[in-house]
Amino acid sequence: MDDSNRYERGMAMLRKTQGEGADKVMKSLESIAPDLGRFAAEFVFDDIYGRPGLDLKSREMISVAALTTLGYAGPQLRVHIGAALRVGCTQQEIIEIIMQMAVYAGFPAALNGIQAAKEVFAEFAAAK
Amino acid sequence: MDDSNRYERGMAMLRKTQGEGADKVMKSLESIAPDLGRFAAEFVFDDIYGRPGLDLKSREMISVAALTTLGYAGPQLRVHIGAALRVGCTQQEIIEIIMQMAVYAGFPAALNGIQAAKEVFAEFAAAK
Amino acid sequence: MDDSNRYERGMAMLRKTQGEGADKVMKSLESIAPDLGRFAAEFVFDDIYGRPGLDLKSREMISVAALTTLGYAGPQLRVHIGAALRVGCTQQEIIEIIMQMAVYAGFPAALNGIQAAKEVFAEFAAAK
Amino acid sequence: MDDSNRYERGMAMLRKTQGEGADKVMKSLESIAPDLGRFAAEFVFDDIYGRPGLDLKSREMISVAALTTLGYAGPQLRVHIGAALRVGCTQQEIIEIIMQMAVYAGFPAALNGIQAAKEVFAEFAAAK
Amino acid sequence: MDDSNRYERGMAMLRKTQGEGADKVMKSLESIAPDLGRFAAEFVFDDIYGRPGLDLKSREMISVAALTTLGYAGPQLRVHIGAALRVGCTQQEIIEIIMQMAVYAGFPAALNGIQAAKEVFAEFAAAK
Amino acid sequence: MDDSNRYERGMAMLRKTQGEGADKVMKSLESIAPDLGRFAAEFVFDDIYGRPGLDLKSREMISVAALTTLGYAGPQLRVHIGAALRVGCTQQEIIEIIMQMAVYAGFPAALNGIQAAKEVFAEFAAAK
Repeated sequence: MDDSNRYERGMAMLRKTQGEGADKVMKSLESIAPDLGRFAAEFVFDDIYGRPGLDLKSREMISVAALTTLGYAGPQLRVHIGAALRVGCTQQEIIEIIMQMAVYAGFPAALNGIQAAKEVFAEFAAAK
Repeated sequence: MDDSNRYERGMAMLRKTQGEGADKVMKSLESIAPDLGRFAAEFVFDDIYGRPGLDLKSREMISVAALTTLGYAGPQLRVHIGAALRVGCTQQEIIEIIMQMAVYAGFPAALNGIQAAKEVFAEFAAAK
Repeated sequence: MDDSNRYERGMAMLRKTQGEGADKVMKSLESIAPDLGRFAAEFVFDDIYGRPGLDLKSREMISVAALTTLGYAGPQLRVHIGAALRVGCTQQEIIEIIMQMAVYAGFPAALNGIQAAKEVFAEFAAAK
Repeated sequence: MDDSNRYERGMAMLRKTQGEGADKVMKSLESIAPDLGRFAAEFVFDDIYGRPGLDLKSREMISVAALTTLGYAGPQLRVHIGAALRVGCTQQEIIEIIMQMAVYAGFPAALNGIQAAKEVFAEFAAAK
Repeated sequence: MDDSNRYERGMAMLRKTQGEGADKVMKSLESIAPDLGRFAAEFVFDDIYGRPGLDLKSREMISVAALTTLGYAGPQLRVHIGAALRVGCTQQEIIEIIMQMAVYAGFPAALNGIQAAKEVFAEFAAAK
Repeated sequence: MDDSNRYERGMAMLRKTQGEGADKVMKSLESIAPDLGRFAAEFVFDDIYGRPGLDLKSREMISVAALTTLGYAGPQLRVHIGAALRVGCTQQEIIEIIMQMAVYAGFPAALNGIQAAKEVFAEFAAAK
């Protein structure tokens, strides 16, 4: 188990999936809780996202499902909708995932998730 | 939009994904809330699961993610871990999905999800 | 504001809505956290349930809705399904309330709520 | 079971309970997830709200209870506080419902629910 | 049990822990649900916070933990981060509490909690 | 940052706080998701619990608060009530923490938490 480069590998994964947003999140944590940023890089984006056994597209799809289900995680849901697009999900697949959450988490969570998707899709369209 | 066979199509989807468990759930609802069973067949398993735009394996993967995240949905999580296996998920993929939920829903939800997977995997092994 | 009899009034409300179960709950708290039982009597069942502005049947209906929505509150849901029956809800009304929660809290919460209702209805039938 | 007019009946129920807001919600979903709007009309507002067994005022009361309990469903809570007023709830009844949720979902959910009610009541007063 | 001064004692506790914010919350409830404010003073800040058995700093620490865990309780979390500072928590202790919640409630809840702390710490710095 | 002994340090922390239960949890994960056990040791019990800035008793107190708040995390709540006792919390402090959660998470979560405490206290008494 090579633990020496967890941070670097995690930051690479973060940048690959979140683009410029990755460094923005880290910067925003720097003055207040830099270790939470470090744990996100090391544990979330290397230990977990860096594992074999599930491709990156599937990982982002289940993250969108989980964040829609939580209901209160708007900022993180928007980040991972963007990440899902970056790793190859289509807009239609993301909509299908969020719609299916109406079954498990209820319509309010799904409706708020769709609203988040609408905003992220518009940002991506504007950035082109 | 052909609405006339929603129930039949939904029951076919239910049996395809949940095997014998499908009729058990419907039977258990029959004496108390048969319409909830009908809505599950029509809305959940035809309107939603029957849609194009996301393959069935992906649908079961995001259901496992959502049900692990909810934390309290043990019976439904076990049902959908079984369904995930039936539509082509490997045990390792299911474990990866549940483990990733530690990031979004916390370790207790993930640990309880792993316990559910352990039980379902054992039932499947025993049934062979 | 007459604060002197909050406990007695709350216990009367508890017994009216929960029957023999009321004293069982209080007894179970006695050795470990008697003040939580006192707060339940005083705050929950006098300050809140004792208020005018909403009839008791409506109060139990919204409690069944809330407890189904929480998803993890099985013991309390069963208690309030019983209370709803005691203050005049029909079994069909209770089923309708729980089924509607599929919309807001998702199908797993509703399915578990229906299972709780099934158990309570059976106990009431057996007690006759 | 007449399935042929579920959408029309659901839209009629939506307009009856949500007034002009009904078409606004549908329009906002049109460009991104029109089928979620269709499911809301058909499943939520015809299959569920259109059922006998519970009057419309009771249905809106339990929806306010559920949405307050969820904690994160501010937009939907505001919509259903308005709907509750339209189908005959008094402002005082709505306040009582939200206050009682302090017992089951905690004070933060109730306090945020009261804030939502304050906003909706002000809109209704301004619209007169 | 002296019930006669619960409101006054609760308001004193509220002012001690929340400073000027205490009267702002009460005023905001006055026109819409004054009894919810009264219950907060009497039940929350006298019956509970006024108990011996746990010092006030510990009480605010566990409130910050609970409010971070809920995920949707931003306004109340900000209030109790301020209260924690007023009763002797250091900024570092508050950050540690919120970071630990990543384990139990997931990273989104912790990240949103850190953002809340950042805002409150800035307000406290500006007020000096 | 010395990453080389995170697992060993985490296991030491786990054994210190959870006694024999520590190895039982790890063993139960061994055949199904050993890496989740490793992440618990490394991330939860070394990266987080091993940090300075908050004493161990405070860490277990906020864990009891968080796990009570979640509502569905019975097994983990019982483990951390035991851990809280091992690192110096009194039974009365634990009861106070759980009771205070009635304010933030509602009475059902608090009542279920008290029931968990009752069971753990009985096990500790029996083990003496």
